Amino acid sequence: MFCQCIILVYFYSMNRLELFEQIKKKKSYLCVGLDTDIEKIPKHLLKTDDPIFEFNKQIIDATKEFTIAYKPNVAFYESLGASGWESLRKTLEYIPKECFTIADAKRGDIGNTSSLYARAFFKNLNFDSITVAPYMGEDSVKPFLEFEGKWVILLVHTSNVGSENFQLLQTREGKFVYEEVIFASQLWTTADKMMYVVGATHEEKVGAIRALAPHHFFLVPGVGAQGGNMEQISKVGMNDQCGLIVNSARSIIYASTKEDFAEAARKESKKLQVSMSALLDEYCR
Amino acid sequence: MFCQCIILVYFYSMNRLELFEQIKKKKSYLCVGLDTDIEKIPKHLLKTDDPIFEFNKQIIDATKEFTIAYKPNVAFYESLGASGWESLRKTLEYIPKECFTIADAKRGDIGNTSSLYARAFFKNLNFDSITVAPYMGEDSVKPFLEFEGKWVILLVHTSNVGSENFQLLQTREGKFVYEEVIFASQLWTTADKMMYVVGATHEEKVGAIRALAPHHFFLVPGVGAQGGNMEQISKVGMNDQCGLIVNSARSIIYASTKEDFAEAARKESKKLQVSMSALLDEYCR
Repeated sequence: MFCQCIILVYFYSMNRLELFEQIKKKKSYLCVGLDTDIEKIPKHLLKTDDPIFEFNKQIIDATKEFTIAYKPNVAFYESLGASGWESLRKTLEYIPKECFTIADAKRGDIGNTSSLYARAFFKNLNFDSITVAPYMGEDSVKPFLEFEGKWVILLVHTSNVGSENFQLLQTREGKFVYEEVIFASQLWTTADKMMYVVGATHEEKVGAIRALAPHHFFLVPGVGAQGGNMEQISKVGMNDQCGLIVNSARSIIYASTKEDFAEAARKESKKLQVSMSALLDEYCR
Repeated sequence: MFCQCIILVYFYSMNRLELFEQIKKKKSYLCVGLDTDIEKIPKHLLKTDDPIFEFNKQIIDATKEFTIAYKPNVAFYESLGASGWESLRKTLEYIPKECFTIADAKRGDIGNTSSLYARAFFKNLNFDSITVAPYMGEDSVKPFLEFEGKWVILLVHTSNVGSENFQLLQTREGKFVYEEVIFASQLWTTADKMMYVVGATHEEKVGAIRALAPHHFFLVPGVGAQGGNMEQISKVGMNDQCGLIVNSARSIIYASTKEDFAEAARKESKKLQVSMSALLDEYCR
C-alpha cells in the first residue's frame, strides 16, 4: 500500500487588518531598517562566522517588543555578494512571524523579469512586501501583485533631495508626477495589496497625499537621520487604521557602535514606541 | 635589503572611443542578453556543477566573435539566491576583456544606498556599466557616476507597454517626462559617462531622442522577441560613432533549447552581425 503525502507550504503574510492588530497590540508603528553595514557594526562582531547576521539577530532580539516591521535594504547585503545574500536569508528566517517584513529593493523591470524579482523576494526569501520603482509602469509592477497575500510598496514621493527632479514635475493637467503614480496605481490594485513610500521630509505634502489615498498604508522613511518630524507626519498622515509604518534605521541600529549596541538600539526603539503610543491615541481615529 | 612591491589593480573599462573601435573591428553593435533561466536552458546542462555558468560560458564562446557587449539581467541570477550570485561572478570573469559588460539591474536609491549598489556591480563584479532607474533623481544616480571609468545607462524610454504610463506623461512645458530625464541628466555628466536606454519598440521616437542627445550611446532592447525593427532603429538612431548597442537575448540564447544551443546561438548572432555590418556602412556617418 502506498502512502501519499501532500505537503503544503504556507507563505504566511499579514493582511491589512492583521497589521493594524499588531500596531494596536504593540502601540507602535515603528519599522526598524536593517541597513547593516559591515564597516559600521561593532568590531567585536567581526570575529563571528556571519557578522551581518549576528548583528541583525541581536538588533531583532533587542527591538522586537517595540517594532511591528523590519526593512532590510537589499543593497547592504548585495554589496557583499553571495555571503551577503546568505546573511539576508538567515535574517528573514529569524524575524518573528508577527512582524511585517519589507524588502527595500526598489526593483522594477519588464514583466518576465519583474516576475523573477518577485520570486526572489516573495518565494525564496519569504518577504511580506517589496518596494518597487514605478518608472517602467503597470506591466513592471503587476508581476509583484500576482503573489497572493504579498504586498507592493510603490515609490511615490521619496525622502531624498533628488525626489524633486522628476516626482515634482507638473503635468499639463496640473498634477505632480508622483500624484499621477498614485492615480494610475489605484487602477491596478487596492489598499489591501499596495502601500506607498512617502518621505517624512515632505511633511507639507503628506496630508494631501493622504487625501488622495485615504486607506493605503504609507511607508515613511526619513524620520531621524534624514530630518523628518514624526509628530507632524503622524498628525497629517494617520488614518483610522494608523496607515503609517515609520522607518528608522541608522538612529536605532547605530545608536551605539560599541559592545552595548543592542541595548542602545532597545532604548532608542522604546523611546520611539512611547512617542508613537501617544500619537496613536491622539490621531488614529 | 627590502624589496618594496606596489601592486596596482586596474578595473579596466572601455571609454567611448574604445567602444567605437570594437564596433568597427567586429562590424557589429550587438549585445547578447544573458537572461539565463534555469527553467529554459537545455536539460543536459543540469547535470553540471553550475548549469547557469556552463550555459553562459558556451554562449559566450559561441557568440564572442560577433558581439561587442554582454548584458546579464541580474534578476535571473538573484532569483537563485547565493548560488546565482556566484554564477554571475564567474560569468563576469569569463567574458573577454574586449567586450563591454552591462549589469542590467535597474537600481536606484538614496545616495548612501546607491553607493553600495555601485560597489556591488562596479567593484565586486567589475561590470563596465549598470542600468539605473531615474525616478529618485540626481542624488540616486550620482554615486554610480563617481566610479572612474564606469558607465551609467539611464532608463529613458523603455521597451515595454507600461512605458506609456509615466514616461509619456506630458509636462506643462509640453515635454514628455522621458525628455525631462534626458535634459536633467545631461546636467549631471557627459556622453562619456552616461548612456540611455531607448526601447526599439518606439522606433517613431528614436530619431527625436537622437536629436536631444546627439553624442550619447543608446542601449536598445526590444529588437527580436519584443518586435522592434533593427533597420529602422539604425537608420534614425545612429550617429558618427554608431551610438547604438542593440540587445538581443531570447532570440539568440534560446535559438535552440537542445544540445546544439551554442551552435544555434552562434548562427543567430552571426546573422545579426551581418545585418549590422551593412547598416553600419549605410548609416554610421
